[in-house]
Amino acid sequence: MNQNLLRQYAAFAVRVGVNPQKGQTMIISAPIEGAEFVRMCAQEAYDAGAREVVVKYDDEKLNRIRMERTDVDVLTDVKPHVLRSYLDYAESEGGACILNVIAADPEIYKGLDPEKINRVNAARRAALKGWRDKTLKDEVQWSIVAIPSAAWAAKIFPGQPDAEEKLWQAIFDVCRVEEGGDVVAAWKKHVADTSARRDRLNELHLKSVHLQSARGTDLTVGLADGHIWEGAQSKTPEGYTFIANIPTEEVFTAPHRERVDGLVYGTKPYVYNGNLIENFWVRFQDGLVVEHHAEKGEELLTKLLDTDAGARRIGEIALVPASSPINRSGLLFYNTLFDENAACHIAFGQGYPGTVKGGNSMTREQLRDCGVNESLVHEDVMVGSDDMTITGLTENGETVVIFENGEWAF
Amino acid sequence: MNQNLLRQYAAFAVRVGVNPQKGQTMIISAPIEGAEFVRMCAQEAYDAGAREVVVKYDDEKLNRIRMERTDVDVLTDVKPHVLRSYLDYAESEGGACILNVIAADPEIYKGLDPEKINRVNAARRAALKGWRDKTLKDEVQWSIVAIPSAAWAAKIFPGQPDAEEKLWQAIFDVCRVEEGGDVVAAWKKHVADTSARRDRLNELHLKSVHLQSARGTDLTVGLADGHIWEGAQSKTPEGYTFIANIPTEEVFTAPHRERVDGLVYGTKPYVYNGNLIENFWVRFQDGLVVEHHAEKGEELLTKLLDTDAGARRIGEIALVPASSPINRSGLLFYNTLFDENAACHIAFGQGYPGTVKGGNSMTREQLRDCGVNESLVHEDVMVGSDDMTITGLTENGETVVIFENGEWAF
Repeated sequence: MNQNLLRQYAAFAVRVGVNPQKGQTMIISAPIEGAEFVRMCAQEAYDAGAREVVVKYDDEKLNRIRMERTDVDVLTDVKPHVLRSYLDYAESEGGACILNVIAADPEIYKGLDPEKINRVNAARRAALKGWRDKTLKDEVQWSIVAIPSAAWAAKIFPGQPDAEEKLWQAIFDVCRVEEGGDVVAAWKKHVADTSARRDRLNELHLKSVHLQSARGTDLTVGLADGHIWEGAQSKTPEGYTFIANIPTEEVFTAPHRERVDGLVYGTKPYVYNGNLIENFWVRFQDGLVVEHHAEKGEELLTKLLDTDAGARRIGEIALVPASSPINRSGLLFYNTLFDENAACHIAFGQGYPGTVKGGNSMTREQLRDCGVNESLVHEDVMVGSDDMTITGLTENGETVVIFENGEWAF
Repeated sequence: MNQNLLRQYAAFAVRVGVNPQKGQTMIISAPIEGAEFVRMCAQEAYDAGAREVVVKYDDEKLNRIRMERTDVDVLTDVKPHVLRSYLDYAESEGGACILNVIAADPEIYKGLDPEKINRVNAARRAALKGWRDKTLKDEVQWSIVAIPSAAWAAKIFPGQPDAEEKLWQAIFDVCRVEEGGDVVAAWKKHVADTSARRDRLNELHLKSVHLQSARGTDLTVGLADGHIWEGAQSKTPEGYTFIANIPTEEVFTAPHRERVDGLVYGTKPYVYNGNLIENFWVRFQDGLVVEHHAEKGEELLTKLLDTDAGARRIGEIALVPASSPINRSGLLFYNTLFDENAACHIAFGQGYPGTVKGGNSMTREQLRDCGVNESLVHEDVMVGSDDMTITGLTENGETVVIFENGEWAF
């Protein structure tokens, strides 16, 4: 492990990702294997003026033992101290922010009862609602950052003894961490560039965007009423900026659930529950998928689209340039945190309330009236390519070029 | 690491040490470096019928960063969820028991402000009182077990590249963990033997014990009124047995603070705050140290004895045979958990309330009236040797031989 690059990555995750303020408590949730990185992040947070750094270590191999050997009634009885271990800090002087470090083995629960896993995860989510709501509504700064695990690295670089080292290098590359570089400065510039494009899109007051490529994509995506383009960074009510997902290359908003028409081709393999769907296309009519095909994994695609009524419509359209470092890496990360930043994408299923004006305080009905889609799933599929043209149609009937040859036109 | 021996050690720590009952929650507190051992202990606890295993991981390198970089006012403000993270289980159906796995670097806080460390530790103890009391009063089963850390191993085997491996082997040896052996059966026998001796000592109704050796030790230790010999294992009010300290070779009780007379020689180097006191002797009169000398570290010994009024008197007399595996290992472990089990010892300072009848519910004054000593310190120093004779004087005036040539006479 290159200590200097690791330290840069920690500096980036803390300073740009979470951005702890003077007097705040920074919570770090991390796998035990990430202890070295965690300690670097802790030092960085103290350097930034954090009041205290509190670490919650997690051991996924132990979690598997617990999942396997504990009664579901016991596991779903999440004790009150678990929620309090967040709120005791969030409600204290200075408040709290959180860095979630992930290094999950995508197959850690392989072979265990999926219903038990779902029930336990649901109980945990419900028990932690009081804290999760604070992050989902951006009331506190939060950031998710990944580090390699042996299992994850082996999935990307199968059979290679230095897989973990290679994954580190890939993560550094796509996160702009480089020898002699200044990752914090690089990201400040990247965030400024992306914010300017996001703001420009919002100023255009678009009714729809039109995606075209030589391969045959010809898709019109009508946007939700009152839609807002989001991206680059988020902001708490106090105005503290943060990056919820590291890395991020996208600018995204809510399509109107009934105003999507045309044909779109998948341009990257799509990982669904650990399995691949490849070379697929989908035809929309009035927002609904009316026809679909995949050279590989067609059954899986069908299953996904049949999850519920909302799974046949889309909840997100995201613009990512072909020059994105994740795309240039040529890697499939088997992790949405990275893969969705490789190309323009649409997401089957649930939309984000925050991508329409006032959406975070709307009822389900109000969101639906705006055109925001609703579903149990949210699955991002990559449709962008380096020959893609995207134009926008404004409310005034003007046509504006947004992407040319897969890159931002402004 | 020999996986089979490690598994035996885990079985011993869980089955004999903590002894979780069907339906109980077993909490494990452990350093992150001990994850492999922790998972084995978790499996063992589930095998024993535990309702759930909950692990609290600790990272001492992170603790040092926190200690160094957080304001003392923040660190001493221990949040309520910390206590609840124990009591939520202790107060639930089935109750809780705890395995404390330690692997501390004795010098982890080297160079930091000792007063800050003391204040933080005191605040943490105070905040956890509601749980600690349950262990100190044996209301729940609890056990402390050690695993090597790099820093600890280097202290015992300096400059040896396989120090950690050597320390594992030493721990296995002194804990009766051996290839082809049955550690649980071996400990059941050891506990039965030691319990029989403890019970015999209690039946004798001794007034005092007299320690003699060729080297010159000639010490009479009057025992506290209503004293009880303890050792081998402890028991909760429900009758669940456990071993609080692993390993254990001692049978011990409370001396009377004013009835200790004569000369005693130290027989092993004594580690005080990481430093050595060697080849020392101490002369008692009416319970008080009136004269002392050490070939090495005399100043330290003086400092210890001057801590407070109670530090010049003793709070514990413990009998350990010369055949103790810890003694036979020939090692100094720099850790009281092991070293005090190498030889008969006395402890300068605080006595244990539980070593007099009804002591756990007595006031300080009542304990003092029984002769139990009081002090801020409790420092065990080894005085036993393989030529030691110990005789007891009963209330009826009879003399009973307890140790001959360093070994139990019964």
